[in-house]
Amino acid sequence: MYFEIFRQMNKQLGQIDKWLDATDAYAKAKSIEPNLFLDFRLAPDQFPFVRQVQIVTDTTKLAAARLTGKEAPTFADTEKTIDELRARVKATRTFLDGLVAADFDAAATRVITQPRWEGKVMSGANYFLEHALPNFYFHLNAVYALLRHNGVNLGKRDYLGALTQTTP
Amino acid sequence: MYFEIFRQMNKQLGQIDKWLDATDAYAKAKSIEPNLFLDFRLAPDQFPFVRQVQIVTDTTKLAAARLTGKEAPTFADTEKTIDELRARVKATRTFLDGLVAADFDAAATRVITQPRWEGKVMSGANYFLEHALPNFYFHLNAVYALLRHNGVNLGKRDYLGALTQTTP
Repeated sequence: MYFEIFRQMNKQLGQIDKWLDATDAYAKAKSIEPNLFLDFRLAPDQFPFVRQVQIVTDTTKLAAARLTGKEAPTFADTEKTIDELRARVKATRTFLDGLVAADFDAAATRVITQPRWEGKVMSGANYFLEHALPNFYFHLNAVYALLRHNGVNLGKRDYLGALTQTTP
Repeated sequence: MYFEIFRQMNKQLGQIDKWLDATDAYAKAKSIEPNLFLDFRLAPDQFPFVRQVQIVTDTTKLAAARLTGKEAPTFADTEKTIDELRARVKATRTFLDGLVAADFDAAATRVITQPRWEGKVMSGANYFLEHALPNFYFHLNAVYALLRHNGVNLGKRDYLGALTQTTP
C-alpha cells in the first residue's frame, strides 16, 4: 500500500497549491501583502508557515527516497514568496510522479536511520507508519491551520480534494 | 496494511490522553478552569476543541466499523469536561483493541457510503486512503494545534509518541 499512500500524499500536496491560491485571493481582497503569511505562526515556539511548507515537502520526498532508494531533489530552503513555495511543492510532486509501485517492493524491510536518531534504526515499515506518515499530516495540517486561523477562506473540501466516488 | 495503520491510529489516540494531561497541568499552573478549553476554536467558523475530539474518535471508529463490518460504540456527544473526553478516547481505543488483522481481509473491496454522499459510493480502499485517513489526521492535528496555540506545553514527541527503534 506504500505506493497508494504516496499517491495520496502527492494529491494532498496538490491541495496546498489551492490553499496558496486562496491565500493570494484573501490578501488581495484585504489589500495586504500575501508574502507576509510566510512568517506567521500558531504559537511563538512553533515553526512559521514557510518552514511548515518546507518540512511537509521534505518529509514526503525523504520518506519516498528512503523507502525506494531513489535520490530526492534538494532545496536551498530560501523561499521568500508564495510563488517560491509553489515551485517547491511542484518539484516535490514531480519527484513523486516519477515513482512506480515496484519502486516500493523492498520498502517494508529497508533499514532507515537519520542523524538525530544517534545510531538507532527503524524498519521501513515502522518508519513509514510511526514517523513519516504522521509527520507528513502534522505539517500539512499546520499549513492548513495557520491559514484558517488567519482568515483564509478554506474548508474541508479544500483539504480533501476530489473523492473517487461512483454511482452504483 | 489496514490493520497496521489502525494500530497506529490507536496509538495516536493514546497520545491525546497525554495532551489532555498537559492541558490539566497547564490550567493548574495558570489557575484557570481546564474545561474552558472545550469551547476554544482556531477560527470562528471552525469546530471547537470538544467537537474536534468527538470527530477524530468518530472518524476512527466509523472507518474501522465500515471496513470490518463490526459494530462501533455509540456516543451521546454530550461531553462537558476533559475527563469525559478521556472516557470517549478510551472507549474508542477499546473498540480498536478488539480488532484483529483478519477483520480487514475484505476491507479494500467493501462498498462504502454515507448519507451526505447522496447515493454515491466509494470502494473501501479509496474511502480509507482519500477520506478516512486524511480526516483522522485533520481532526487529530486540529486538537493538537488548538492546544499548542493556547499555550499548552506540547512538542513533536508528544505527537508521535514512542518510536520502534533498535540499535543495530
